[in-house]
Amino acid sequence: MAGVSQMKTVTGEGGYVLEDVPHLTDYIPDLPTYRNQLQDNPAYSTVKDNFVKVDDAVAQKVVVHNNSPRGIHFRRAGPRQKVCFQSDEVHACIVTCGGLCPGLNTVIREIVCGLYHMYGVNKVLGIDGGYRGFYSKNTIKLTPKVVDDIHKRGGTFLGTSRGGHDKSKIVDSIQDRGINQVYIIGGDGTQKGAALIYEEIRRRGLKVAVVGVPETIDNDIPVIDRSFGFDTAVEEAQRAISAAHVEAGSFENGIGLVKLMGRHSGFIAMHATLASRDVDCCLIPESPFYLEGKGGLFEFIKRRLKENGHMVIVVAEGAGENLLTKYLQSMDLQDASGNNLHHDVGLWISQKINDHFAREDKMAITLKYIDPTYMIRAVPGNASDNVYCTLLAHSAVHGAMAGFTGFTAGPVNGQHCYIPFERINERQNQVVITDRMWARLLSSTDQPSFICPEVIAQSKKNQGKPPPQF
Amino acid sequence: MAGVSQMKTVTGEGGYVLEDVPHLTDYIPDLPTYRNQLQDNPAYSTVKDNFVKVDDAVAQKVVVHNNSPRGIHFRRAGPRQKVCFQSDEVHACIVTCGGLCPGLNTVIREIVCGLYHMYGVNKVLGIDGGYRGFYSKNTIKLTPKVVDDIHKRGGTFLGTSRGGHDKSKIVDSIQDRGINQVYIIGGDGTQKGAALIYEEIRRRGLKVAVVGVPETIDNDIPVIDRSFGFDTAVEEAQRAISAAHVEAGSFENGIGLVKLMGRHSGFIAMHATLASRDVDCCLIPESPFYLEGKGGLFEFIKRRLKENGHMVIVVAEGAGENLLTKYLQSMDLQDASGNNLHHDVGLWISQKINDHFAREDKMAITLKYIDPTYMIRAVPGNASDNVYCTLLAHSAVHGAMAGFTGFTAGPVNGQHCYIPFERINERQNQVVITDRMWARLLSSTDQPSFICPEVIAQSKKNQGKPPPQF
Amino acid sequence: MAGVSQMKTVTGEGGYVLEDVPHLTDYIPDLPTYRNQLQDNPAYSTVKDNFVKVDDAVAQKVVVHNNSPRGIHFRRAGPRQKVCFQSDEVHACIVTCGGLCPGLNTVIREIVCGLYHMYGVNKVLGIDGGYRGFYSKNTIKLTPKVVDDIHKRGGTFLGTSRGGHDKSKIVDSIQDRGINQVYIIGGDGTQKGAALIYEEIRRRGLKVAVVGVPETIDNDIPVIDRSFGFDTAVEEAQRAISAAHVEAGSFENGIGLVKLMGRHSGFIAMHATLASRDVDCCLIPESPFYLEGKGGLFEFIKRRLKENGHMVIVVAEGAGENLLTKYLQSMDLQDASGNNLHHDVGLWISQKINDHFAREDKMAITLKYIDPTYMIRAVPGNASDNVYCTLLAHSAVHGAMAGFTGFTAGPVNGQHCYIPFERINERQNQVVITDRMWARLLSSTDQPSFICPEVIAQSKKNQGKPPPQF
Amino acid sequence: MAGVSQMKTVTGEGGYVLEDVPHLTDYIPDLPTYRNQLQDNPAYSTVKDNFVKVDDAVAQKVVVHNNSPRGIHFRRAGPRQKVCFQSDEVHACIVTCGGLCPGLNTVIREIVCGLYHMYGVNKVLGIDGGYRGFYSKNTIKLTPKVVDDIHKRGGTFLGTSRGGHDKSKIVDSIQDRGINQVYIIGGDGTQKGAALIYEEIRRRGLKVAVVGVPETIDNDIPVIDRSFGFDTAVEEAQRAISAAHVEAGSFENGIGLVKLMGRHSGFIAMHATLASRDVDCCLIPESPFYLEGKGGLFEFIKRRLKENGHMVIVVAEGAGENLLTKYLQSMDLQDASGNNLHHDVGLWISQKINDHFAREDKMAITLKYIDPTYMIRAVPGNASDNVYCTLLAHSAVHGAMAGFTGFTAGPVNGQHCYIPFERINERQNQVVITDRMWARLLSSTDQPSFICPEVIAQSKKNQGKPPPQF
Repeated sequence: MAGVSQMKTVTGEGGYVLEDVPHLTDYIPDLPTYRNQLQDNPAYSTVKDNFVKVDDAVAQKVVVHNNSPRGIHFRRAGPRQKVCFQSDEVHACIVTCGGLCPGLNTVIREIVCGLYHMYGVNKVLGIDGGYRGFYSKNTIKLTPKVVDDIHKRGGTFLGTSRGGHDKSKIVDSIQDRGINQVYIIGGDGTQKGAALIYEEIRRRGLKVAVVGVPETIDNDIPVIDRSFGFDTAVEEAQRAISAAHVEAGSFENGIGLVKLMGRHSGFIAMHATLASRDVDCCLIPESPFYLEGKGGLFEFIKRRLKENGHMVIVVAEGAGENLLTKYLQSMDLQDASGNNLHHDVGLWISQKINDHFAREDKMAITLKYIDPTYMIRAVPGNASDNVYCTLLAHSAVHGAMAGFTGFTAGPVNGQHCYIPFERINERQNQVVITDRMWARLLSSTDQPSFICPEVIAQSKKNQGKPPPQF
Repeated sequence: MAGVSQMKTVTGEGGYVLEDVPHLTDYIPDLPTYRNQLQDNPAYSTVKDNFVKVDDAVAQKVVVHNNSPRGIHFRRAGPRQKVCFQSDEVHACIVTCGGLCPGLNTVIREIVCGLYHMYGVNKVLGIDGGYRGFYSKNTIKLTPKVVDDIHKRGGTFLGTSRGGHDKSKIVDSIQDRGINQVYIIGGDGTQKGAALIYEEIRRRGLKVAVVGVPETIDNDIPVIDRSFGFDTAVEEAQRAISAAHVEAGSFENGIGLVKLMGRHSGFIAMHATLASRDVDCCLIPESPFYLEGKGGLFEFIKRRLKENGHMVIVVAEGAGENLLTKYLQSMDLQDASGNNLHHDVGLWISQKINDHFAREDKMAITLKYIDPTYMIRAVPGNASDNVYCTLLAHSAVHGAMAGFTGFTAGPVNGQHCYIPFERINERQNQVVITDRMWARLLSSTDQPSFICPEVIAQSKKNQGKPPPQF
Repeated sequence: MAGVSQMKTVTGEGGYVLEDVPHLTDYIPDLPTYRNQLQDNPAYSTVKDNFVKVDDAVAQKVVVHNNSPRGIHFRRAGPRQKVCFQSDEVHACIVTCGGLCPGLNTVIREIVCGLYHMYGVNKVLGIDGGYRGFYSKNTIKLTPKVVDDIHKRGGTFLGTSRGGHDKSKIVDSIQDRGINQVYIIGGDGTQKGAALIYEEIRRRGLKVAVVGVPETIDNDIPVIDRSFGFDTAVEEAQRAISAAHVEAGSFENGIGLVKLMGRHSGFIAMHATLASRDVDCCLIPESPFYLEGKGGLFEFIKRRLKENGHMVIVVAEGAGENLLTKYLQSMDLQDASGNNLHHDVGLWISQKINDHFAREDKMAITLKYIDPTYMIRAVPGNASDNVYCTLLAHSAVHGAMAGFTGFTAGPVNGQHCYIPFERINERQNQVVITDRMWARLLSSTDQPSFICPEVIAQSKKNQGKPPPQF
Repeated sequence: MAGVSQMKTVTGEGGYVLEDVPHLTDYIPDLPTYRNQLQDNPAYSTVKDNFVKVDDAVAQKVVVHNNSPRGIHFRRAGPRQKVCFQSDEVHACIVTCGGLCPGLNTVIREIVCGLYHMYGVNKVLGIDGGYRGFYSKNTIKLTPKVVDDIHKRGGTFLGTSRGGHDKSKIVDSIQDRGINQVYIIGGDGTQKGAALIYEEIRRRGLKVAVVGVPETIDNDIPVIDRSFGFDTAVEEAQRAISAAHVEAGSFENGIGLVKLMGRHSGFIAMHATLASRDVDCCLIPESPFYLEGKGGLFEFIKRRLKENGHMVIVVAEGAGENLLTKYLQSMDLQDASGNNLHHDVGLWISQKINDHFAREDKMAITLKYIDPTYMIRAVPGNASDNVYCTLLAHSAVHGAMAGFTGFTAGPVNGQHCYIPFERINERQNQVVITDRMWARLLSSTDQPSFICPEVIAQSKKNQGKPPPQF
């Protein structure tokens, strides 16, 4: 990717590395700056250090040794002494893309309110229905009054959709409308789109700040501590697990199976399992497993049912991808109608378990499958996510006002930072199954590790982000 | 305090300072050590770095400059290669003291389960009803089975009480019962008691590890990121604020007044206000305010009622202490029956507001006062607190097994550490009203700062713990 | 009361008595009628019996004997073949008075939507802030769009206030505005006001239908099965009781005391106690109790604490009125500041218990007092109340359209009826403590009956409404 | 059915008919009776009419005319002056069969506690895992202490299963164990089993009272007002509808589809739709519908999407049975793996809608399907259901003690009764689509009636139970 080669890196003493984010002045040399009016704001006038210092950085490495090198740092988020936009000059737009996530509306609300209350900006446009909305005439004028109560609702006030990022057409639309701050909220693909839009804007030499607010309920964004909505999702997931536990416990050989979000990473499944303690087996994409034979899932189910009479299984949506693929290939899939079934790991495993115990073990089981995905995604953010989203939105606003662009905001070790798109987009964060957190889960469920020695060896080499806690 | 002088401090290059915790070998020189059996545990056998490295430390300072000194560090929590206790030698006890806090039962559960599943320990005693329980014969044998479901209930399974720490009698009881690991869960006063117990044990030269697990719903513990139960409390507080909002909005000149926990610090009030966005005024202990005259509370209430027709006020229980004290002194308090009223800031302010608008402003208001304290304290921990409490308990267990003593466990910048008692006990964490978080609140409520210039000046000098985020 | 003498009563065979409601034709003889357009409504066109039959009545007595007299009946609610208003002639208004109650907004919504969708009426006015709003110029135009989402919020969309019913001025206002259907939602006093307004309108000979929708969270309305919001209130009360249970159980001699609504009747306290099963003592206005001596509350508390170590007490706000009055008289109440305390039975009993055990019994207790009143009142109606409020509103609308006036709508034995104001206003419904429901509560709490023989004798004579169930 | 011919019917004046329930003395002539000890119970000693009168009956018909015949009555539930069992003679058992339903554990608890506290009975056996449990040796001794907290949990404490009622073996087991009161909680099939067990017991002339407690979350039991758990289910269903609403509203042409319980009746779907008001279309088994063409579902979806941009559909699990059957017959179903898909109406309709809009209308839609069934069934009963279940259980206990047998307990017009098995088992209660309640739903959703004239004609002839309200 072209962007990677352009990463702005500053090195210093003791192994200090700052992975900086682009700034409008990188390609618009004579950009005038203005006094930040935040210091005149009555609410902020009592703040001790009104502005983030020019060289404030946030260390990525917190676990250190006496002589260890200092490692990577990111630019600290927050308001700057000088800004690159005057209040009445700003014309911002906000777009939300991809799936739903608790807290989306809070982010929208706080970008609008932050721009208005902190910087006196009142031209903010809502793009309707994701990237595609850039091509349409429908936009929503966003004011503090319009967004006042939206944080109490789930979903996105602006509407969303998947895909649709034709960077040229989008940048045309941005230019046509005279927009100079673009806030792009969305997942993986969306942020890659944001990177392309930023590149195109830079190529055209426009004074337009592009800010990505990464959104994924799965918590699979690298570098940052956690993604917004994750906390709420784990909380809501408890309901489904609890229901599965009740169902399982009321039937002889009862199995409650809950599918949770996580196409590429098992964070929600892992945290929900740890928080609930009612789960007997947690299957995630990072930890391949197998069904048949010694050490396989069926054997474990049989054993646990014999011991306890019932069990609860949590499966992340991306778990068992390898098995599912193999299975799909093995079938002559002429029956188009079965599509959904065959691609939903929860339905698929349910059927496999039912088949196995009916045919092989001649054991009567009662399996109840729960897919709470949409019931989890659609709730509004809880208090913790609400506060988090507020900080995130304000960080984004301060950054754009200060002229930073092509960046993402997010907390690293509890301190909000500006992070280059490349760092966020280069890979997905995953549960490191050779870390203590996963071991803790294995210990609490007492499930098989399903791991053959080669996998462990390879995984130990893997340079995963250190787990957020201990 | 004697303990402070004994703080184990290690310094290194680049301004590196390690504030270490005591270890049994500090005063028992020839203590044998044993191989940590965790490496044989199937769940943990896949962990890449099974054990925390001898010199792993966690940096307190995350916001840095290129050349800034490295500052204070704490010993990283986690399992060690060598332990000081054999499984069948351990005789642990757990005691909970002080007020209730969501997550208490999870901490109890996970100390028991952690000791059992990770270290094969099965002698764990629950002390009944706080420190006083050490003098009584009633104890509760704690096994994984006994504590299996307690995390789903609020309160403390062990019972609690305030005060009662006669260090000599407690240490006598510990000696008599042959206890060699003491887990003390409780607030401020409790941890000071734990420090004394540790000192006494050290004086007697006993092989007994003393571990403090700091508990305060108010989040006023210094050094650590947040205290357990805080997240749940802020979430629950939303209900009361929401009810106050409905009540206020249904009456002409309706005022909803909610008292939240926080005797010395306003963290719950501040976070609940930020998360809710329905609050017009948030009063906390750290920000003194006044009622009458220009810039006072009454003037603000009058203005807000004129603008909006209704308003919501959140007051932390320790807010306005100065006013309340002055008022109480001014009264001839012969009526013993009025006690509760006069010491409850919520009831007191309610009455003051009612009186003022009845007498001075001849303005009909309808004030509804809500005190949700016990309804908040008594809920079980939410998912986030549950996971947090699990890590906290495991950190405590790993530390005690490794022979550390006189320490507290807790997360610093997201990494669990062992922190000397002195650091936790020397002062209470408070909202720094010259930080951006409070400014953000002021901006969202648009309330007066109630601050005269001298206060700001003094506060800017104050060395507060940096706020956890941005 | 003049109205009583005018009650329209029809008698029939077998002891059949119909207590009918007034009709506009009672005093406007030549009122034209119109074909009810509901039969053209696509939604209603499939209804088998489109209209309620002229002589449909609902029996109040359900428990009968073979030869028992048939007793009192009420006119069945529902649409009539002929209506007294044309769609474009109707100008309705809605007013809400008194305290908050879950479901208020659903009633408002469904009167508006019912008039619009069923009868094509689109002139509906919201009176702002209770009866007083009739004198003010502020009114709210109510359309289905305006009220679309209000049922999801607590409180009242229209605002409310207490008192203020000057019948002449109100009827003047009704005349001036050309209003011809008045929907009055509110409690006891409000319905008495509605009766006066109806009398005045009748005196002036106006074609204005007056409909009362009785609202009291306490469920103390006679004749009808239950009042709206009651179900939701009992549900929410569980939270407070559960918190009290946790608090009490965590302290030695812990007492959790919860005050619930019910100034004149203990229905919420009784149902919440029965539903929860965590309560050791339930005190209601209907069952006087005493504190000291044999068979008194203190003795019971002491005993229960000795047996169980903790207990939960629920007290309805009107319980112990006699004791409280006596106590207030005995005091020289010069300290105005103590007012709140002295009139809140919960605070008063808390203090009495604390005093008693400190002074008399020298027993250390820990009492936690919870007053969840405003947190209960302010929630939106639950599903059951929402459906109930819909039927209630539609009954009211059908009645007014058909020309009935001076009536209240409500379910009797599960069938919605029109009930004369007199029946609703003549007395308050109360828990009959010689009924089996209260015995069931006594059995479940095992609390003393606090009843001396005379009280029982008197109560057995009391003609209480039969309890709604069994 | 043999039982029907034996229905005990008493007729009286004015068209009075009492459909009585069997009594042990029907086939055991000289059964001794005993004084009911309830009158000595301190809790019950203040009850005015301690016992239900011998001839107390409950009228089924509440909507009457002046001269209408009195119609069917049922025996009133409650304690009798004389009982047929001595306390220490009673050996009761409880069994739960079929699916889960909120409130099950409350019924179990209150049978145990009612027998113990009201009648001094302490021999109560829990049969493990449904009817099959009668053949097994595993039983659970039930005491008030064992069941103390079970009402706070979902599911059934006793375990459940489907089928397995071999009446001979079950009655053998009852005889062998010396059981003389059998409480059978379960649905449709279970109650038919209970009738057979009663017949067999009668045939053998045993002094064993057989009591059915009808359980169906679907509310499809005839005669009684509502079945327990229904209220809770409707409440919980709101969550799923709300999530569907959020999902639908966030996407262009978003459709949220929620499947709710109701194999033969649409009560849950109807009530949840009425309570929520977020639903655009509610499909139930009683109202056949069609997909294609004029007046069909696809046409309606297209129209609603054009108007509003999104919509919510609720489908009861038994809706569209005719369509599904036709579809299944048309397919060559060799692929056994597709079973689940093809029999789940929600998945099937989802696919049909997706296919239609992809192929026919070339319209991009986003459909989200939610199946909350197990998350609804597994919650504990809400307060209203808890109180209801208490009364139900006590009615059952009073009836058995009094020697009634072969009966079901339940409320008719708010008064608990004893109802012959035949009345409950002869048919299922259904939504009468020519009643006003369904019209009200059609009016609120504005959906097509999908009804052709013949259906209306036939339905108007159908003798449905009158809807519970108005």
